Amino acid sequence: MDFKTEFKPETVQPMEIEGLSFDIITEEFGPHSLTAEEYKVVQRVVHASADFELGKSMLFHPNAIQAGIEAIRNGERIICDVQMVQSGVSKPRIEKFGGSTHVYISDEDVMEEAKRLNTTRAIVSMRKATAEADGGIYAIGNAPTALLELIRLVKEGIAKPSLIIGLPVGFVSAAESKEELAKLDIPFITNIGRKGGSTVTVAAVNALSLLAQQE
Amino acid sequence: MDFKTEFKPETVQPMEIEGLSFDIITEEFGPHSLTAEEYKVVQRVVHASADFELGKSMLFHPNAIQAGIEAIRNGERIICDVQMVQSGVSKPRIEKFGGSTHVYISDEDVMEEAKRLNTTRAIVSMRKATAEADGGIYAIGNAPTALLELIRLVKEGIAKPSLIIGLPVGFVSAAESKEELAKLDIPFITNIGRKGGSTVTVAAVNALSLLAQQE
Repeated sequence: MDFKTEFKPETVQPMEIEGLSFDIITEEFGPHSLTAEEYKVVQRVVHASADFELGKSMLFHPNAIQAGIEAIRNGERIICDVQMVQSGVSKPRIEKFGGSTHVYISDEDVMEEAKRLNTTRAIVSMRKATAEADGGIYAIGNAPTALLELIRLVKEGIAKPSLIIGLPVGFVSAAESKEELAKLDIPFITNIGRKGGSTVTVAAVNALSLLAQQE
Repeated sequence: MDFKTEFKPETVQPMEIEGLSFDIITEEFGPHSLTAEEYKVVQRVVHASADFELGKSMLFHPNAIQAGIEAIRNGERIICDVQMVQSGVSKPRIEKFGGSTHVYISDEDVMEEAKRLNTTRAIVSMRKATAEADGGIYAIGNAPTALLELIRLVKEGIAKPSLIIGLPVGFVSAAESKEELAKLDIPFITNIGRKGGSTVTVAAVNALSLLAQQE
């Protein structure tokens, strides 16, 4: 096929764009009390959202970064609440350590079970994920009901995630679900308020896999 | 597998959550000069981002909504700049009209051509998409270089999209690329400033396919 590609555009290269973007973010973000590694995560969240308010609303359990890095290096599963999160996660850095990404929300058995119980597929997908194995990084960017169910399973001693990244977005239950997450004494990355979403959840996972690779 | 599902949580159902969310958005959004259909798109953008600033920054070419609805009803292609956008687009409503979603950025020939020209895969993917066929809805949520290249191809008369949804996010070239888009006299949906991203681009496409189905 003819792509009509002989014209070579004078554009900045992607790696240059990323470097320039991070300089702008650091300049505008200003002073903060994050650790250097937490800031790496926040920087990617701001990069993915162009939203400093969202960046400044981020909350980290004191062991979150270390737990995330170790889980990735141990090749633990990355469980995503929705397909969009799984799509965005950088696979090579996860797979290099033997890890893999999973999403259960469209599984046949999850859909059937949700129908049977008249509840959400998001809720049932968390039950399936936690029943399959302990550990893993749960990356929840969309469904507050998934996060609330995961929190319940943790409290009941049924789920034992290595890290929960809980950043659902929305007007109903999202902020509340994140408040509940921030009360847990297990590693979490979350934020305060309504904002969040798949792209910033992906940004947090990708920041952690970069840290896992670099250190 | 035992999902431990007998406990039925007292959560609000997804459709109820959506309805409640839209009520909150309408209340907080306040007065505006959008058409009823443009507002449907903005409402979904705010729903996906919880960001009224982003919602209020949206810009519509006067024919954008009608062009989008017609393209979907005619079963035209939806071309996405990245996998995350394709993942999020609601497929059944597109496929019902004979349409399909496409993403070219990871195609073997696109990668080779980008390497050969020392340019971005995003740029080459737009060349491939426009060379394949006229028409289609271009949904660009990530790569400003893709949007800038598409604008160039339109200006040169090579590309003839039915609608461009250009909502890339970022600190370098994103705002500038959207300013350029807003100068074109072809149907576009975009916004002013750095904010945007895959989730809001998906929200715009899904709002249009709902309109295509409902009217």
